Amino acid sequence: MPGALSEFESRRRPVLEALAQRKLDALIVASAPNVRYLSGFTGSNGALLVWPGGTVLFTDPRYEIQAAQETDCRVKVARGALYPALMKFAAGKKLKNLGFEAGRVSYEAYEQLRIGLTLNASLTPVSGLVEIIRMVKSEAEIALIEQSVRLNSQAYEKAMRRARPGMSEFELAAEFEYQMRRLGAEKPSFEPVIAAGPRSALPHARPTSNRLGKNQLLLVDVGASREGYASDMTRMAFLGKPGPKVKRLYQAVLEAQLAALDAVRPGVRAEQVDRAARQVLRAAGLGAAFVHSTGHGLGLEIHEPPRIGKRDRTVLAAGMTITVEPGVYLEGFGGVRIEDTVVVTGSGCRILTPTSKELLLLPF
Amino acid sequence: MPGALSEFESRRRPVLEALAQRKLDALIVASAPNVRYLSGFTGSNGALLVWPGGTVLFTDPRYEIQAAQETDCRVKVARGALYPALMKFAAGKKLKNLGFEAGRVSYEAYEQLRIGLTLNASLTPVSGLVEIIRMVKSEAEIALIEQSVRLNSQAYEKAMRRARPGMSEFELAAEFEYQMRRLGAEKPSFEPVIAAGPRSALPHARPTSNRLGKNQLLLVDVGASREGYASDMTRMAFLGKPGPKVKRLYQAVLEAQLAALDAVRPGVRAEQVDRAARQVLRAAGLGAAFVHSTGHGLGLEIHEPPRIGKRDRTVLAAGMTITVEPGVYLEGFGGVRIEDTVVVTGSGCRILTPTSKELLLLPF
Repeated sequence: MPGALSEFESRRRPVLEALAQRKLDALIVASAPNVRYLSGFTGSNGALLVWPGGTVLFTDPRYEIQAAQETDCRVKVARGALYPALMKFAAGKKLKNLGFEAGRVSYEAYEQLRIGLTLNASLTPVSGLVEIIRMVKSEAEIALIEQSVRLNSQAYEKAMRRARPGMSEFELAAEFEYQMRRLGAEKPSFEPVIAAGPRSALPHARPTSNRLGKNQLLLVDVGASREGYASDMTRMAFLGKPGPKVKRLYQAVLEAQLAALDAVRPGVRAEQVDRAARQVLRAAGLGAAFVHSTGHGLGLEIHEPPRIGKRDRTVLAAGMTITVEPGVYLEGFGGVRIEDTVVVTGSGCRILTPTSKELLLLPF
Repeated sequence: MPGALSEFESRRRPVLEALAQRKLDALIVASAPNVRYLSGFTGSNGALLVWPGGTVLFTDPRYEIQAAQETDCRVKVARGALYPALMKFAAGKKLKNLGFEAGRVSYEAYEQLRIGLTLNASLTPVSGLVEIIRMVKSEAEIALIEQSVRLNSQAYEKAMRRARPGMSEFELAAEFEYQMRRLGAEKPSFEPVIAAGPRSALPHARPTSNRLGKNQLLLVDVGASREGYASDMTRMAFLGKPGPKVKRLYQAVLEAQLAALDAVRPGVRAEQVDRAARQVLRAAGLGAAFVHSTGHGLGLEIHEPPRIGKRDRTVLAAGMTITVEPGVYLEGFGGVRIEDTVVVTGSGCRILTPTSKELLLLPF
């Protein structure tokens, strides 16, 4: 009786199917999250060769011990650059039509691959092959993303309890990261965006030494990484008593976010979810202030396909994990964004983020 | 009277000289740290076109406000991908021979550039052009690196004062990052390596939930990022009373590190510094256990040229900032590494790292 496939073997099977469809003999996997997904290896320098006859991980001597512990694949330790060693191995196996991850291999590395080609062998650029497989998560992956989301929300709540006037954006970021680490995260899934006052109008503001002041919007966009899996959440606070303009902006963004959440279900296209948010903001006269997409996939990377944006025609399917995060940004005044991490279910979506979506009022 | 060159203009001047030498009309700068170095822009999505007639930064709408605040260059906000917009602009300026950063542009992005070429225009792969200029730091840059190093050492000392038996590697990493943030770092310059016991034999181990136990080596490799500039330090602790094997390993690595530091001065080749460390460890019978290079340049990136390794023939020059970090790794037992950040001076080097190099004994 044949044994059950290992977790990684079952992930590599659709890769082999995609190779057969494209008439490729093998795939050179260069992207670190794709390498991790297909082999378990978490080091920063690794490349996989995947073909019907097996999978080999190429890495350098720093990762020799770690690779043996993490992966079920055969490991080859290259003393120099990985690609020449990989191409030599592929030649030995008589693999001719090689696909490579064109979005993840630099032009310079491509030249290394090309130099290693034997007579009659060829390189074919491949885009998104593994990423498309990764879009739909397994139950085990969803469980890890949910852990990451919960841990992130707990860290956010603990940090915000310590927020007080005069604290710098830096210090609040430090609090958040400390709490997150203590709760078992490996690291933030991206550099926290903690922006007070007019800086909240910069969608990707880095924390600064600016201190939290009276009558300011405070935008907090944070995520954790748990066993490699990302979470992502944005919440808004106000220091003092918000005036009518802030309330109006907040209400408009909240309605846009709820409309987008309502639109998430299997069978709809990503662009339809984006449109749902955009229509609400346009009706509120804020269309031009919404300068980014409504969301993005997340998993082993903080930004993965699909993009919940204007022209992404990906059909959503159960098991996809995405963010829903419309926002508006008024230069000189401030910005408002509200973001949840959700999983597409059989009939709609389940919001993983447990944190309240009320505007948090911090007394001043 | 002509005005003084701005900081960024004076950084772009050697780029223009290098372009003239290579008979290129313009350089397409794709690497985020190179973009930051030459323009001040710190966003994650930016590309520069640098030519004798000017410098233009291309970015997306999320960074429109931020770009205007950070850079002295003209800013073009592209609604879609940056490279088609950049190529259209270059065509309008009649720029023909375009260099591009071949190690930083993916093959896929290269195809976008190629599609944008006009008749008689060409793309030339360029490697390390800006990185070589960045190797020698200005006084202002060295001051920022020194701030980063000091802040990192302070955070290390505060965190290690809180280390105690039963604490997990995760928790110690959390302490370190919290202290670092409070002292004004934007983020760690890399994910802290905090590895106890046999895990210290993995040169790039990630912190785990493993708890610090008795009679264990503890390897702590941490760095901060301050206004974009990196620091990097490794120190060793022992939980309990070290036996003769640990003492012998520690002494050998310390002697190798001191020998390498002695070898650092302007005019020597990077490989000579590596050889100095390697000879000491080989003489101690530990040559095979030293599985990486002796060090690397650092600045806006945690790993920059030169590589202080076996075959790097870069001639060291005053103003270069590098790490010196030999190490030995014995599978199943543990590893020892000692690392400082140093700046090459007119006559030798100045060790920036102020932390004691004695093996730290943590009572158990």
